[in-house]
Amino acid sequence: MAAERLVVIGGDAAGMSAASQARRMKGPRDLEIVAFERGDFTSYSACGIPYWVGGDVAGPGDLVARTPEEHRERGIDLRMRTEVTGIDVAGQRVRARDLVSGEESWTGYDKLVVATGARPVRPPLPGIDAPGVHGVQGLDDGQALINTLSRTKGRRAVVVGAGYIGVEMAEALLRRGYDVTAVYRGEQPMATLDPDMGRLVRTAMDGMGITTVGGAAVSRILTGEDGRVRAVATEDAEYPADVVVLGIGVEPRTELARTAGLPLGPHGGLLTDLAMRVRGHDNIWAGGDCVEVLDLVSGTTRHIALGTHANKHGQIIGANAGGGYSTFPGVVGTAVSKVCDLEIARTGLREKDARAVGLQFVTATIESTDRAGYYPGAEPMTVKMLAERRTGRLLGVQIVGRAGSAKRVDIAAVALTARMTVEQMTALDLGYAPPFSPVWDPVLVAARKVTTAVRDGAA
Amino acid sequence: MAAERLVVIGGDAAGMSAASQARRMKGPRDLEIVAFERGDFTSYSACGIPYWVGGDVAGPGDLVARTPEEHRERGIDLRMRTEVTGIDVAGQRVRARDLVSGEESWTGYDKLVVATGARPVRPPLPGIDAPGVHGVQGLDDGQALINTLSRTKGRRAVVVGAGYIGVEMAEALLRRGYDVTAVYRGEQPMATLDPDMGRLVRTAMDGMGITTVGGAAVSRILTGEDGRVRAVATEDAEYPADVVVLGIGVEPRTELARTAGLPLGPHGGLLTDLAMRVRGHDNIWAGGDCVEVLDLVSGTTRHIALGTHANKHGQIIGANAGGGYSTFPGVVGTAVSKVCDLEIARTGLREKDARAVGLQFVTATIESTDRAGYYPGAEPMTVKMLAERRTGRLLGVQIVGRAGSAKRVDIAAVALTARMTVEQMTALDLGYAPPFSPVWDPVLVAARKVTTAVRDGAA
Repeated sequence: MAAERLVVIGGDAAGMSAASQARRMKGPRDLEIVAFERGDFTSYSACGIPYWVGGDVAGPGDLVARTPEEHRERGIDLRMRTEVTGIDVAGQRVRARDLVSGEESWTGYDKLVVATGARPVRPPLPGIDAPGVHGVQGLDDGQALINTLSRTKGRRAVVVGAGYIGVEMAEALLRRGYDVTAVYRGEQPMATLDPDMGRLVRTAMDGMGITTVGGAAVSRILTGEDGRVRAVATEDAEYPADVVVLGIGVEPRTELARTAGLPLGPHGGLLTDLAMRVRGHDNIWAGGDCVEVLDLVSGTTRHIALGTHANKHGQIIGANAGGGYSTFPGVVGTAVSKVCDLEIARTGLREKDARAVGLQFVTATIESTDRAGYYPGAEPMTVKMLAERRTGRLLGVQIVGRAGSAKRVDIAAVALTARMTVEQMTALDLGYAPPFSPVWDPVLVAARKVTTAVRDGAA
Repeated sequence: MAAERLVVIGGDAAGMSAASQARRMKGPRDLEIVAFERGDFTSYSACGIPYWVGGDVAGPGDLVARTPEEHRERGIDLRMRTEVTGIDVAGQRVRARDLVSGEESWTGYDKLVVATGARPVRPPLPGIDAPGVHGVQGLDDGQALINTLSRTKGRRAVVVGAGYIGVEMAEALLRRGYDVTAVYRGEQPMATLDPDMGRLVRTAMDGMGITTVGGAAVSRILTGEDGRVRAVATEDAEYPADVVVLGIGVEPRTELARTAGLPLGPHGGLLTDLAMRVRGHDNIWAGGDCVEVLDLVSGTTRHIALGTHANKHGQIIGANAGGGYSTFPGVVGTAVSKVCDLEIARTGLREKDARAVGLQFVTATIESTDRAGYYPGAEPMTVKMLAERRTGRLLGVQIVGRAGSAKRVDIAAVALTARMTVEQMTALDLGYAPPFSPVWDPVLVAARKVTTAVRDGAA
């Protein structure tokens, strides 16, 4: 018998990273690890689904970093197709149902990891459950969509929502030869950007042949005589559709946690301390898409469903649950994406985020190129930068451009973490050579311009 | 009459940036600006010369950011083909010779900017001045090389030196259809990397069909009966050559400054304060390739000839000479380059740099890919990271890989500036999406591995 038992709820990035790291810290004689997963897959890249649908990735197997068998070989008692249906915090046990046999049983724990992930927002609209309407959260969803696409003769696709998932799915469907319409609520696509930057994305999407319909709230999904989707309807219009993909965001899957009395934040995610321990519970950790994280720029908590955070959380939880010590300081809100050859990146606060937390700011937007203007293949890039009024502290950066744009946001992500001022940024020693950057990197050009705005504002 | 006169020696990046910025600060009625340039060009990108030679850039005009006429239109009294031959510090005047007429005259100054640049190292070897042997520091040099290439029938090129210029020229000559041999002193090419990383560059160069000859000191240049170069000789061997390009580095061009009694550092560059003012001289500034800069990681001064620094220096000098206030905090030693599709980047200290300043360190080297391994086009990337022993402070990063490798060094450049520890870096919120990064960015993977090394070293 192992000295103690660690139970993990959820077999994707956060849960299995935690299990694996705990196993590296302690062997099976010291720590028994039991992990429950409702679905058929472990440790997979949900972020890769659009590229699978678009045909860039051959199959779901490519998106699986580690299979159930591989986890079991590492001494993890992994129970697939088994859903945890209750957490008894006082009794230190979880109730789980075998989804094949229907049997339920209790499993005790000394330490618990909650990694229940997120689910796609699916508004209760008429027709939302009709055949041909798909979310793309898990590999099963991806496979279901691909099955629909292979069976469907029509070539009209409507993507509802134009955030990361929405634009990536628009690209995927375009690559598969569909006429794609993106219908979204906001004024511009990519509401994670300020509208002036989102407008650049919209213009580019229009240029790619994607029909963009902004300011449009979907009111119902219309079905044909066969019961399948035939159109997406707003108050004013109908958009014919042979297939509909929902990309309207995700929300933390925290009903289990709520029922068990674990603390949730304003966005419905679990609240943890810096060691990723659920607040008020010494032996329960939580991470990945089901938690809220500290935003280091605004000082508030946010819900960000992103594989890279889930993996970090899992590592940290596993280290702590395995008797070590590690903390997650928080995020600055970095995200990168692309739609065809357009790269989109952001980090830190948008204008409205800054306003919401009482920060006054100045902004500057510049146009430059990814490499020296005279070097072949130089492509335009727009960089917007926000700095706090008076102090000049960097608050956020948004970038829209072609090749070489997105990952430049990392410069700002590190600068935000270090709480640099934009004037300090103007002196950053960034890599320069004509194939890689103009002599003033676009991020430096933006920093210079916003530094001037800070000075002018202070005068 | 203007209230005061600013004299600038040198019409390239640092000098003309200073002149332009000073002009933005003060109009012609308040500040007269006189700039002297020996050559035929102003404000040009020497870094672009290899791409001009290689055929990626059409002509020298593409490399000129601002012509003499454009500077004059902005109210700068620019005197081309005029060489400053003396600085009379006590008398606040410079002596200049018109290289066309041969006439010399004195020009008084209230404020002086020394931006005399660097010159290629040209060892006094027999035959070094033979026709067919070329340096590539200025646009005139580039044109001379291109003229030689167009006249030369043979297709054998030898590049002496395998630093940035050397490898970039090797690529350029390869692209022009030459059989290229790179002959260099060091164990590996790219001595700005540690030898273990330089070895990766050598392997890649070999794979591109470049003959690499390391550990080879050139003893003489052999000429044929026509007086032109015919081979490069070391103690042991001869390497036939129809054309020879010297890429053995540059040294500050500071004879004028030395003669005038201005302070020079251990690398022969001018020493300045943080406002880029020459030490001990309130009204003299210096910047660009003729100065030494503070290395923020080691605390020592270095000589780094790089256009991006020269432009920053010029901006800062111009602001200060124009009555404003601006400082240059120093560098961390970032440099990026490529040879064909191989990207090479470095920042901070190499192992030998760290040892030279008494820093003890641990290192880690990892292999990863530029994007998610399952995403099409994923290419390998090797990242080496150095951290200070015990404190874990980041000391340096070196990257060798294919597309998407070089500019990742900027993450480390900012982290070095912020004096982050490698453990802090493991939590950096870097942009993640499958087309742009694995779920753990390669820089994070390296940070994690070297963090473990720091802990193990502390145990």
